[in-house]
Amino acid sequence: MSQSSPSLVPFRAVDAIRHKRDAQEHTREEIEQLVFAYTRGEIPDYQVAAWLMAVVLKGMTRAETAALTEAMLHSGEVLDLSSLPGVKVDKHSTGGVGDKTSLVLAPVAAAGGLLVPMISGRGLGHTGGTLDKLEAIPGFNVNLALPEFLRVLRQCGCAMIGQTAEIAPADKKLYALRDVTATVESPYLICASIMSKKLAEGIDALVLDVKTGSGAFMKKQEDAAFLAELMVETGQRMGKKVVALLTDMDQPLGRKVGNALEVEECVEVLRGEGPDDLRQLCLELCGWMFLLGGASASKDEGMKQAAEIIASGRGLEKFREMVGLQGGDARVVDDPARLPQARRKTEVLSWRDGFVTAIQCEQVGIAGMMLGGGREKKEDSIDPAVGLVLHKKIGERVKRGEPICTVHYNSETRVEAARQLVEASYQIADQPAPSSQPLVHGLICGTENEGR
Amino acid sequence: MSQSSPSLVPFRAVDAIRHKRDAQEHTREEIEQLVFAYTRGEIPDYQVAAWLMAVVLKGMTRAETAALTEAMLHSGEVLDLSSLPGVKVDKHSTGGVGDKTSLVLAPVAAAGGLLVPMISGRGLGHTGGTLDKLEAIPGFNVNLALPEFLRVLRQCGCAMIGQTAEIAPADKKLYALRDVTATVESPYLICASIMSKKLAEGIDALVLDVKTGSGAFMKKQEDAAFLAELMVETGQRMGKKVVALLTDMDQPLGRKVGNALEVEECVEVLRGEGPDDLRQLCLELCGWMFLLGGASASKDEGMKQAAEIIASGRGLEKFREMVGLQGGDARVVDDPARLPQARRKTEVLSWRDGFVTAIQCEQVGIAGMMLGGGREKKEDSIDPAVGLVLHKKIGERVKRGEPICTVHYNSETRVEAARQLVEASYQIADQPAPSSQPLVHGLICGTENEGR
Repeated sequence: MSQSSPSLVPFRAVDAIRHKRDAQEHTREEIEQLVFAYTRGEIPDYQVAAWLMAVVLKGMTRAETAALTEAMLHSGEVLDLSSLPGVKVDKHSTGGVGDKTSLVLAPVAAAGGLLVPMISGRGLGHTGGTLDKLEAIPGFNVNLALPEFLRVLRQCGCAMIGQTAEIAPADKKLYALRDVTATVESPYLICASIMSKKLAEGIDALVLDVKTGSGAFMKKQEDAAFLAELMVETGQRMGKKVVALLTDMDQPLGRKVGNALEVEECVEVLRGEGPDDLRQLCLELCGWMFLLGGASASKDEGMKQAAEIIASGRGLEKFREMVGLQGGDARVVDDPARLPQARRKTEVLSWRDGFVTAIQCEQVGIAGMMLGGGREKKEDSIDPAVGLVLHKKIGERVKRGEPICTVHYNSETRVEAARQLVEASYQIADQPAPSSQPLVHGLICGTENEGR
Repeated sequence: MSQSSPSLVPFRAVDAIRHKRDAQEHTREEIEQLVFAYTRGEIPDYQVAAWLMAVVLKGMTRAETAALTEAMLHSGEVLDLSSLPGVKVDKHSTGGVGDKTSLVLAPVAAAGGLLVPMISGRGLGHTGGTLDKLEAIPGFNVNLALPEFLRVLRQCGCAMIGQTAEIAPADKKLYALRDVTATVESPYLICASIMSKKLAEGIDALVLDVKTGSGAFMKKQEDAAFLAELMVETGQRMGKKVVALLTDMDQPLGRKVGNALEVEECVEVLRGEGPDDLRQLCLELCGWMFLLGGASASKDEGMKQAAEIIASGRGLEKFREMVGLQGGDARVVDDPARLPQARRKTEVLSWRDGFVTAIQCEQVGIAGMMLGGGREKKEDSIDPAVGLVLHKKIGERVKRGEPICTVHYNSETRVEAARQLVEASYQIADQPAPSSQPLVHGLICGTENEGR
């Protein structure tokens, strides 16, 4: 074959499509040419759409996945944080309902000496997004230019912004095309999308929180595990320290769903309060961040360190500092009433005595979206004040007539539908479910961290 | 599901793509909406490209294939030939090297009382096209407008033109997209493309000549048989009489390859001369045309009828009439020297004594293309005069130094390469191959013609 002198063979997108269609392995060069030429606008959308569908249906090898990730990463700017002293560590979650750990992790990890250059996304569909939560804080600016981002990072050890035009432009273009060609649902493409953006942050280590269950994108644990393995191996192939936790999304995380409400709950955790599951997951993830970042000798020691940082108030202080540096009203930390408040509340009452045995988590997320707290379409605007407070979670006892959820709303339009959706999402039985789901379902360390 | 009230569900192309990606069966309505909206320009190429790739990789049911064919057919005009008395019958070949039967079949079938409204294509790659052959006849116009086409058809019983803008515009658009997205090679899409165009001719019956072997698009007989079954069933579902013959393309058909040379060979057959294999295949196909068209009681009787028409000179007379009506120089029938002649000839000589045991048929077609007789790209122009005359075919004895092929050429540029390609395509051994391939490998009648 002509692979030995590749530069003599002109690149034709149709050949690349045919290779993938016929389940042949792409060369690294072929993937680079496809991604770079597409980013430059030299290959039309229709050819890339056909290729994407072939990838969805034929899959990729680990080497191809890594090559795609790297090509997407190098389609734009990769932050050079080498001038900042310290190890750069980030966390990424695949998304869920009430999934708000980033707002706790960034300040706690920074207070523990790590640098956390976090570039996050917005919510879509039933899941929330970190940027929307941050914007619930009056004045908080998630659109810092890169030099400003680096300034905040240098000064307080963490900074949280949205994706900029410079970061992985290939991903932006590919994601928009995947969205309209039913080619979103491919672990290979999801991996390359996530990892190219995260690695563009110039980090040394990454902790992945891969959600599984009724409120996650990956409903089945084997699918979540497969994606997790793919991301861990891809990151490790690129010389980064990466682990992934498979964590539970069979019910919302914590008790609050909605942007301002979730900020409030994060502040509770940073005060040493807040719901057990959220607090516990934050400690687990932070323990791994400390371990991978070289700030602790083991994950458990890292967890202890995180707990101490919270107990000492240094986590809360760091959060206050970051909010202030990014233009936000830091007084919300001490006075949550300064966060946007919904004008009205209504309650969902239990219709029977018993125990909560299940909560259809995606339905709860959709209810929050219907209230105006999330987006059905990318261009929708959101209401930071609305949301849900769950008084009862799986395993808890309820009495007939007791509130199981408080709905915070501003507009009557869809509140009744949302209320009914929440009610229908609860399952209540005479006895608690025989075994409760653990919070952490599994750990994917790849080959590099084996034995830890 | 909402299938019971489909009009309430707005059509979204992304849903149709997702259905096929997940190997769900499309409803007829979904296929119609996709095809019609695409033809009207309401769905972008990139969505259809993703859908095409999903079809290539996930396939279609027979019902879906028929629905796609019908939707493509109804994207444009369907000829209404009901005002013309007589049964309308056509033949379609999937293409090969030296495959020239149409020029014999149309006049012979018309002389036998059938109406043959033949809309044909051009050659691409290693295979020739009927239109290119016809255009080798000075003055012959393959671009008649539909009213003119009908006038010729009414007057002489057969007419041969190229695809018009009115016929199956969806196919034109889809084919152009398939060509650049590596989605040509799908039996379902090939079936829909061929059958939508053929059925747009307003025919009652169709004989399909599905080529198999080294010079065909379908190299493997099982692939050819699958496509043949698909086309026969699709046609029969739409109320047409259809049979398919699987015929040999492991060596060129007849002895002449090249546009003017092939017209010459067809005239030979119409004179009752010409090579056995070409003559035999013409009789077979015409026998089926007469049977399906109700002009004979059996295929064998139809073959006899065709042989009589040729022997009586009525076939040649009909060909002369059609050529004249379509503006061509009918004198070529009696004086083939009026056809374009290449200025130069060179011979390929046998390098040993023995028997021809194989001819790499696709290579012979490519050699013809290299001489200028075919197109590498759609926009290439062709030279009607050039081509190859094969003096030796499989099973025939050769002596060392004896010419096995004469190359007719006008330009020196690639003649040596073409010559060498022909030489390399011949395999000569001490003994003839133990068993020779039959000309007709199989017959696909579908359910309707079973038992005949």
